[in-house]
Amino acid sequence: ATTFRASEHQHIRYNPLQDEWVLVSAHRMKRPWQGQVEPPLLTTVPRHDPHNPLCPGATRANGEVNPYYEGTFLFDNDFPALQPDAPSPGPSDHPLFQAEAARGVCKVMCFHPWSDVTLPLMSVPEIRAVVDAWASVTEELGAQYPWVQIFENKGAMMGCSNPHPHCQVWASSFLPDVAQREERSQRAYQSQHGEPLLMEYGRQELLRKDRLVLTSEHWLVLVPFWAVWPFQTLLLPRRHVRRLPELTPAERDGAPMGSEAGANWDHWQLHAHYYPPLLRSATVRKFMVGYEMLAQAQRDLTPEQAAERLRALPEVHYRLGQK
Amino acid sequence: ATTFRASEHQHIRYNPLQDEWVLVSAHRMKRPWQGQVEPPLLTTVPRHDPHNPLCPGATRANGEVNPYYEGTFLFDNDFPALQPDAPSPGPSDHPLFQAEAARGVCKVMCFHPWSDVTLPLMSVPEIRAVVDAWASVTEELGAQYPWVQIFENKGAMMGCSNPHPHCQVWASSFLPDVAQREERSQRAYQSQHGEPLLMEYGRQELLRKDRLVLTSEHWLVLVPFWAVWPFQTLLLPRRHVRRLPELTPAERDGAPMGSEAGANWDHWQLHAHYYPPLLRSATVRKFMVGYEMLAQAQRDLTPEQAAERLRALPEVHYRLGQK
Ligand SMILES: O=P(O)(O)O[C@H]1O[C@H](CO)[C@@H](O)[C@H](O)[C@H]1O
Ligand SMILES: O=P(O)(O)O[C@H]1O[C@H](CO)[C@@H](O)[C@H](O)[C@H]1O
Repeated sequence: ATTFRASEHQHIRYNPLQDEWVLVSAHRMKRPWQGQVEPPLLTTVPRHDPHNPLCPGATRANGEVNPYYEGTFLFDNDFPALQPDAPSPGPSDHPLFQAEAARGVCKVMCFHPWSDVTLPLMSVPEIRAVVDAWASVTEELGAQYPWVQIFENKGAMMGCSNPHPHCQVWASSFLPDVAQREERSQRAYQSQHGEPLLMEYGRQELLRKDRLVLTSEHWLVLVPFWAVWPFQTLLLPRRHVRRLPELTPAERDGAPMGSEAGANWDHWQLHAHYYPPLLRSATVRKFMVGYEMLAQAQRDLTPEQAAERLRALPEVHYRLGQK
Repeated sequence: ATTFRASEHQHIRYNPLQDEWVLVSAHRMKRPWQGQVEPPLLTTVPRHDPHNPLCPGATRANGEVNPYYEGTFLFDNDFPALQPDAPSPGPSDHPLFQAEAARGVCKVMCFHPWSDVTLPLMSVPEIRAVVDAWASVTEELGAQYPWVQIFENKGAMMGCSNPHPHCQVWASSFLPDVAQREERSQRAYQSQHGEPLLMEYGRQELLRKDRLVLTSEHWLVLVPFWAVWPFQTLLLPRRHVRRLPELTPAERDGAPMGSEAGANWDHWQLHAHYYPPLLRSATVRKFMVGYEMLAQAQRDLTPEQAAERLRALPEVHYRLGQK
């Protein structure tokens, strides 16, 4: 019998955090690509555009004028998917037609007054201000809502229409689907093994090493064993931290991102998921389409191969290298 | 208190088939769109291109020459994600690092010898030949594999690099993730209510009417109550049919698509999911990004509004109307 090699032999892997499987078919990278190529990234974004509603001093869709902010700037999304006062759909009349109330708040957070930077191009004190702002908005909205989701849609490929560096914060009266799954898995793991799933997982990855991308005194970045997106990574604090506000000043001088739920959930571990849409280059994306939507996620290189490629990247941001 | 109206008030809905929730925020359609616009569809595809590896008589990547086929044409995918003989990764050494064997077969099926048609532009007898070919490939591969997934990635937006009308067939030694969820839900529903989930669901939609798109003697097309994609639809046979090969000749003269599992599963009902990637027009897509990937699917119009818009479409295909 042939010896199994993950980089040559397709297999399926289990995601114990979200209770899902992925098909890993690394030999697929050999096929030629004749499909869609994305437009190259915008390289010249003006530092300040008075017509960009995210810029300091600009007027937004609802007529409000932004302050001349110098650090981060948080405001209510003008077209929120979640509003604080929606009435309830009432009881369902059939088990196959279940609807429930959804209330919440959607905010936008600008990271910096300039449009021509992104998080990795900002200084550590500037990034630290963003982390502090994430922690306070989590604290503020978390007092009222069981879930606060912080996310950044980065680049046109991810549907982002505004080059100004910003993220969104959606707080909801319900635990969203993915959070529910992570909640179930982490709770079950803690009760079975007596410690948080992601604490044990981080420890194992430090021992096994082949999926690590970066480690620092306080943080780990790794390609999860069960990654679905080609260059998906997971950011984990090294110690047990349930929520952003619990991060120490030293830990905040890294770049955590993510959010967390309810009160007194010791099985939770703060973490951030990164899902870059790319497969072969900055302009050839991974299409998660027919088989993925109808059957199961499928990836074309192993998580270990992805980690190796990410580790080999230069430390210097490509835009600084060009200078 | 304000009266609840689904088209104005955000709420969450439950998908009992796949055990998932979706956030419905129909008021979001009011926001202006400044994001990415897709290139318009290719309108002039040559009927025959000797360099297109899917055309009759063309040479494929592996050197094989296609026959001058006149109906459908089925062949092995030259870059299969699933191969019949992959070795097993062996037992897992830790509950957080679980991998299992995956074996299977990937095939490609051309629908028609011409590159300038798509399924809706083909004649009923031509479509019927495709349905018959789906039924036989399901029967053939289903004898060896527990799951046969038939899917069509249609258009560049869905990562399709070849305009020639074709679909793919991936058979696997494992029940894929989505199939597993549908299996669990349908099995549980049958044992609780004594009939297949999708039979009762179809009957209810026929009574409620507001999500129906098309009905015929043998088939229903509807926007499911829990639809995630803006114009997602579900195709259901009217009677209890577990698998494609069970379809009668009269039923095959419609356009069923999909696949099914194992032996003797009476709780299953044959169905096809359609997930068009569009939101506002043929060139403005729905981006399923940050919130959807990290938290929960979110849609910007209600399934009832989508059904109404789909019902209002002309019966004539837009490309025939242009003539
Ligand atoms: O049809 P292709 O080119 O083999 O591949 C396409 O469909 C597959 C199955 O949905 C995806 O995994 C690929 O990302 C996509 O490009
Ligand atoms: O950031 P926007 O423009 O509000 O919206 C974007 O992110 C949302 C949350 O992930 C998605 O639902 C939208 O489809 C996407 O266009």
